[in-house]
Amino acid sequence: MPVQVRQLDTAASDFEAEFAKLRHWSEEADHAIEERVAAILADVKTRGDAAVLECTNRFDGMAAASVAALELTRDELKAAFDAITPAQRSALESAARRVRSYHERQLEACGRSWQYRDEDGTLLGQKVTPLDRVGIYVPGGKAAYPSSVLMNAIPAQVAGVGEIVMVVPTPKGERNALVLAAAYVAGVHRAFTVGGAQAVGALAYGTATIPAVDKITGPGNAYVASAKRRVFGQVGIDMIAGPSEILVLADGTTPADWVAMDLFSQAEHDELAQSILLSPDAAYLAEVRASIDRLIGEMPRQAVIRASLEGRGALILTRSMEEACEISNRIAPEHLEVSSDAPEKWEQLLRHAGAIFLGAFTSESLGDYCAGPNHVLPTSGTARFSSPLGVYDFQKRSSLIQVSEAGAHILGPIAAELAYGEGLQGHARAAEMRLSKKA
Amino acid sequence: MPVQVRQLDTAASDFEAEFAKLRHWSEEADHAIEERVAAILADVKTRGDAAVLECTNRFDGMAAASVAALELTRDELKAAFDAITPAQRSALESAARRVRSYHERQLEACGRSWQYRDEDGTLLGQKVTPLDRVGIYVPGGKAAYPSSVLMNAIPAQVAGVGEIVMVVPTPKGERNALVLAAAYVAGVHRAFTVGGAQAVGALAYGTATIPAVDKITGPGNAYVASAKRRVFGQVGIDMIAGPSEILVLADGTTPADWVAMDLFSQAEHDELAQSILLSPDAAYLAEVRASIDRLIGEMPRQAVIRASLEGRGALILTRSMEEACEISNRIAPEHLEVSSDAPEKWEQLLRHAGAIFLGAFTSESLGDYCAGPNHVLPTSGTARFSSPLGVYDFQKRSSLIQVSEAGAHILGPIAAELAYGEGLQGHARAAEMRLSKKA
Repeated sequence: MPVQVRQLDTAASDFEAEFAKLRHWSEEADHAIEERVAAILADVKTRGDAAVLECTNRFDGMAAASVAALELTRDELKAAFDAITPAQRSALESAARRVRSYHERQLEACGRSWQYRDEDGTLLGQKVTPLDRVGIYVPGGKAAYPSSVLMNAIPAQVAGVGEIVMVVPTPKGERNALVLAAAYVAGVHRAFTVGGAQAVGALAYGTATIPAVDKITGPGNAYVASAKRRVFGQVGIDMIAGPSEILVLADGTTPADWVAMDLFSQAEHDELAQSILLSPDAAYLAEVRASIDRLIGEMPRQAVIRASLEGRGALILTRSMEEACEISNRIAPEHLEVSSDAPEKWEQLLRHAGAIFLGAFTSESLGDYCAGPNHVLPTSGTARFSSPLGVYDFQKRSSLIQVSEAGAHILGPIAAELAYGEGLQGHARAAEMRLSKKA
Repeated sequence: MPVQVRQLDTAASDFEAEFAKLRHWSEEADHAIEERVAAILADVKTRGDAAVLECTNRFDGMAAASVAALELTRDELKAAFDAITPAQRSALESAARRVRSYHERQLEACGRSWQYRDEDGTLLGQKVTPLDRVGIYVPGGKAAYPSSVLMNAIPAQVAGVGEIVMVVPTPKGERNALVLAAAYVAGVHRAFTVGGAQAVGALAYGTATIPAVDKITGPGNAYVASAKRRVFGQVGIDMIAGPSEILVLADGTTPADWVAMDLFSQAEHDELAQSILLSPDAAYLAEVRASIDRLIGEMPRQAVIRASLEGRGALILTRSMEEACEISNRIAPEHLEVSSDAPEKWEQLLRHAGAIFLGAFTSESLGDYCAGPNHVLPTSGTARFSSPLGVYDFQKRSSLIQVSEAGAHILGPIAAELAYGEGLQGHARAAEMRLSKKA
């Protein structure tokens, strides 16, 4: 049965209406979840370890005697690493090395303190420091991704975070060896087999056993997302991610099978994932459609892929590659493939995307695992104003100001004038006092 | 009547308990406000201009005929600039010049795109682009601060934001000439005399007259803060600010009157503002206390200053300057003055603060108005994980990846191994397809 991917045409009169439908995705807040999460967080804040232990035993079907018993030792992480296959070990280590190398470049490019003196001798600058301690949430169960452990822990490590604490639920005690091995490779300092809102609460408030952190990153289910929103302010958080998306801009020079498989690789995540292909070449769109229908039968996750492509996917015929770039900017996709033999030409027209994959050989999946850049990216159009997870998410900046005596004489009258204008006499007088000698 | 500022002593047995009380500040969500804001946002989303106009006329006591009539033209901003005193014009321009100069350094230090090729020819990098359009919320009424217009608009302008849209309520039609003049100086592109949740909604969703923006920054009252929280995700927002704070570390070498006035300059903002002085020198603390009592009578805002200092202020006697630095790190203050004749010595021990003011001549107020760094800073301990408003808040990053054919042969097997391990066969096959020739 052919996959019923909708096709849009920018020249059609109903294009804007169809395009609006395609982009629509509503994240309804579930009141029952919201209330349960609020109760769990309040319980963890008040009762600490006791609440974390009860929740974990109940929701994850565990029978732990204490939260301390839920801690994974460094030896246990190493044992997991030793137990996976040599090919898996090697792949994890290669991926980690490349991800680390990219994030070290990122640190050099934008993560260093700087300062200068202006003409009156005043020192100005910005001091960049790593966060003291961060928490990384790693989902357990069927969507357990060791690659996400690397992508969250390595930038924190490169930033110089003092302590990286991982939490990962292990429903019915089942541990994912690749996840534990990835934690070993990525240099996670402490790890607890705790998940859900209770894990987020423990990291935000701290308990006797689980230390409070300064920021929590990492994906999770609706309970985790709700808990992260609620503790924001007490601690920092990364973005709350929506469904994953790929947008492919194709000039027709990439084998159609390759592009079809790239669309599948996004669609296989879940039914809400979105795969969109834009091309000015109608014959090429037909070719990709044929590839989709031919290849779908080979995919173990074909039911999910079909549901995703039919529910949220699209092939869009555009008037030109330029127009395809404009539409891409309106969508601001998480993943953007420029499948062209002149990708640098189109890249210049692209303003909003989490990650841009250039040329036929750059499948999104290479970037997802091991090219080096982070795979935690802004979704749902938030690439208009936000960025991939990076070293900068694990650092913060403090302004530095040292006004010289000469500088105080220049700045004082300006500050006083503006402060009086705002009715803040204390500000004005504090500035004016610096016009006298210190002694 | 002496100001009853509490005094703490780190050597006292009840210090931790007293210190915890001092830090406690609870921001209770007000359900009535939350519900009204939700209703206003829903109305603006549905009815657009009509809702904005009704809310503005009702809440701000206006009688505008249309939202278009609420727009301030560039000529009106210029007229405001021309109407203020020459001293005010000069102060605004000097402050703007210095703020711009600092943020240009910030752009150079950390706001540029970068890329490199690894050994197999794969191009990796990060493309940094400005936001297309941002909204700046400026409070009206009694807490109208022209300096905040500069501090929000100038980093956006330096980042290269395409369009800066300011909203400022004008209750009963009363316009603050300094605020309008600051908008003129800072290069605001469009301005509307609209405020409250309706202004935030208009900027987030867009109306026929007010354009939708990608990010909203700037302070506001409880309605504005609640609205910003609610539209987050649809657009980016800056931090939700708590009460303003200053922490002064003093070794006793700065004139006591100067430090007393610095404490006043924070306390005069509002009753919840917090001013804390730490010193290992008991005699110096007594001297500052005497200055406070002597100077308080001269301050026009003495009622607010007294309420703030008595409710939330403190003088803390420490065992040493080192201990004072440790306590400062626990507080992670918004403003941190190192009032010492060896400030660089202590600066090295300070990890968490929004802005650090070094030496006796660097009053916070000089930084608030014109030293150059931004005065929008993380409050309530959030300096542990967040940063001053800056050029980086008006930019976002996209990862760039261009894998060469040779690179695809190295990366493909790594990605496939990990993808199969995660049960994502589409990802694996997309990587494996790149092991063949393209044609």
